[in-house]
Amino acid sequence: MVGGGQLARMTHQAAIALGLSLRVLAEASTDGAARVTPDVDLGAPDDQAALLRFAKGCDVVTFDHEHVPTAQIEAIEASGVAVRPGSAALLFAQDKLAQRRRMVELGIRVPEFAPVASIDDVKTFGEAHGWPVVLKAVRGGYDGRGVWLLPEPPTELPLVPLYVEQRVPLVHELAVQVARRPSGEMRTYPVVETVQSDGICVETIAPAPRLSPALAGEAERLACAIADALGVVGMMAVELFEAPGGLVVNELAMRPHNSGHWTIEGAVTSQFEQHLRAVADWPLGDTSLYAPVTVMANVLGGEATDLAAGLAAAMAAVPEAHVHLYGKDPRPGRKLGHVTVLGPDVAEVRQRASLAAALLRGDAE
Amino acid sequence: MVGGGQLARMTHQAAIALGLSLRVLAEASTDGAARVTPDVDLGAPDDQAALLRFAKGCDVVTFDHEHVPTAQIEAIEASGVAVRPGSAALLFAQDKLAQRRRMVELGIRVPEFAPVASIDDVKTFGEAHGWPVVLKAVRGGYDGRGVWLLPEPPTELPLVPLYVEQRVPLVHELAVQVARRPSGEMRTYPVVETVQSDGICVETIAPAPRLSPALAGEAERLACAIADALGVVGMMAVELFEAPGGLVVNELAMRPHNSGHWTIEGAVTSQFEQHLRAVADWPLGDTSLYAPVTVMANVLGGEATDLAAGLAAAMAAVPEAHVHLYGKDPRPGRKLGHVTVLGPDVAEVRQRASLAAALLRGDAE
Repeated sequence: MVGGGQLARMTHQAAIALGLSLRVLAEASTDGAARVTPDVDLGAPDDQAALLRFAKGCDVVTFDHEHVPTAQIEAIEASGVAVRPGSAALLFAQDKLAQRRRMVELGIRVPEFAPVASIDDVKTFGEAHGWPVVLKAVRGGYDGRGVWLLPEPPTELPLVPLYVEQRVPLVHELAVQVARRPSGEMRTYPVVETVQSDGICVETIAPAPRLSPALAGEAERLACAIADALGVVGMMAVELFEAPGGLVVNELAMRPHNSGHWTIEGAVTSQFEQHLRAVADWPLGDTSLYAPVTVMANVLGGEATDLAAGLAAAMAAVPEAHVHLYGKDPRPGRKLGHVTVLGPDVAEVRQRASLAAALLRGDAE
Repeated sequence: MVGGGQLARMTHQAAIALGLSLRVLAEASTDGAARVTPDVDLGAPDDQAALLRFAKGCDVVTFDHEHVPTAQIEAIEASGVAVRPGSAALLFAQDKLAQRRRMVELGIRVPEFAPVASIDDVKTFGEAHGWPVVLKAVRGGYDGRGVWLLPEPPTELPLVPLYVEQRVPLVHELAVQVARRPSGEMRTYPVVETVQSDGICVETIAPAPRLSPALAGEAERLACAIADALGVVGMMAVELFEAPGGLVVNELAMRPHNSGHWTIEGAVTSQFEQHLRAVADWPLGDTSLYAPVTVMANVLGGEATDLAAGLAAAMAAVPEAHVHLYGKDPRPGRKLGHVTVLGPDVAEVRQRASLAAALLRGDAE
């Protein structure tokens, strides 16, 4: 797995159970996954020599992020090592403008958008679709980075490839995960509602409590249609807006994703195991739920510089919480871990998960 | 953790989630845990120098087996490193004769037993209690090793310290797990029924389906009484016979145990996480169940020398099975892994788990 963050870290836990040896290409030996796996190579995700050295001897190469340039992925493929998902599919998770255009070709609803080469392009788009508009980096944005909400025409532009899009008047934010094997076998997970704060997902509720069965079914069909059309292999997360006219696709990620962390305990097969099954071309696992409600709450860094006291407090107050720490040094706003709680009642499970996350990050009770 | 087997391997998975760094003392770099953890020391469990080198810098030392001699554990304690469970408690998991005597002192029912110094001792015991009798090694026996069923007086004895005991006419075999912190906080798990074949556990059913609530409660109280009296810290497994007159204690293990593997998915907190919480002196986790029935089936090596085909067959036929492989080379009779299935109905869940285990080991469908 290229990338040594928390996704590789949690993938390693799943690999251990399946008897798979996960080799990790990390940027630093202090990366979350590098701390807990024995087979670690060090190298930047755009260093072609490091990538080829790393890939040599692997049965299959996969990714914990979207930062490997397409040309480098193609070079690994040319060296004869299986890459899943492949470069042709991954492009649509990396290049958001290509992604929007492909969705339109597939007849899938996305926010109105336009490429941006100048301030005038933004102004023209805003006048046509109304302010505010959302300016986005074509590549590399995540967790609110590479996204700018513009209430009026800008006076300067960030110096990266950009596109602009309509701000969707959304009802809820949703996400759905699908796994696809090389053979085309697919399994979806129930749609979840995601709760965002400052562009960062802070909570997911599975299954989405306020979603009609019809829209839930449509979201799962949409995910399968996209995975099939793009030839995805592995997990894909589709982030959606439930807007007044129906579902609008917001983002694609072709890897385990924060909006699927609830599956570790909440579903029969976790997204991490499912990703491994899919890229190893093994039969996919059951995606049924173990409880009426599963809530995942992210633990974002606060004032505390050490999580020890918070961990004990969270364990004492919420003994049913599943704690996942990512091995990172605490910094304000940094994703340090997550907690998951299962139970029968949405309001109560949300309250318990949110209490555990708050105590863990060091907030007063 | 001293010992690099599957218990350390699965403890590492739990340690990753809690942000703990597990250092492992393995005998070989091919040991199950050594294959998946980055911080591995090599050394025999009775090599005092290796043990002290390993323990230096650890916050706490714990064990995945009972093979470290008492004197060596005391040497680690004398070096100032916390050892949990400590040597005084562990003695009663290592020395079965001391264990029997201590249970008698505590007023807890065990099979009738006697120390053995000669063939005559066995003969006298058999004449008093009836044949067959069970001859056992005082130390080092497990999975049917160190246990001999004698239908008549023997003509020679194994050259190890021995004791003899009555063969209990049992109704069912049971096991109960309890965790205890240094402060004395304890949590028990529901009693399970264990199914044995040739002295090896092949299946556990949680909760024990044919056990009366009264006896289940008694088993949990018994486990707490023993843990408290012996000053256990960490997980303890108590193996019990349900005999015509009530519960009889058969074995104690002071570590995560095969009869508790079902807790990984079946309980809110797994025995591996609970062991870590207890030895780290953190609040213990919830031990509630996620399903009416959880069945764990061991995967014992068969004719197949490679599990790849069996793994794919098991995944295809039983997509709801949780597979755990231990990273061992297959050999007939060797514990290679286990599978766990959750569900509503005992007979069906047993059938599904047993099918998955059989396919995995390579048996024809």
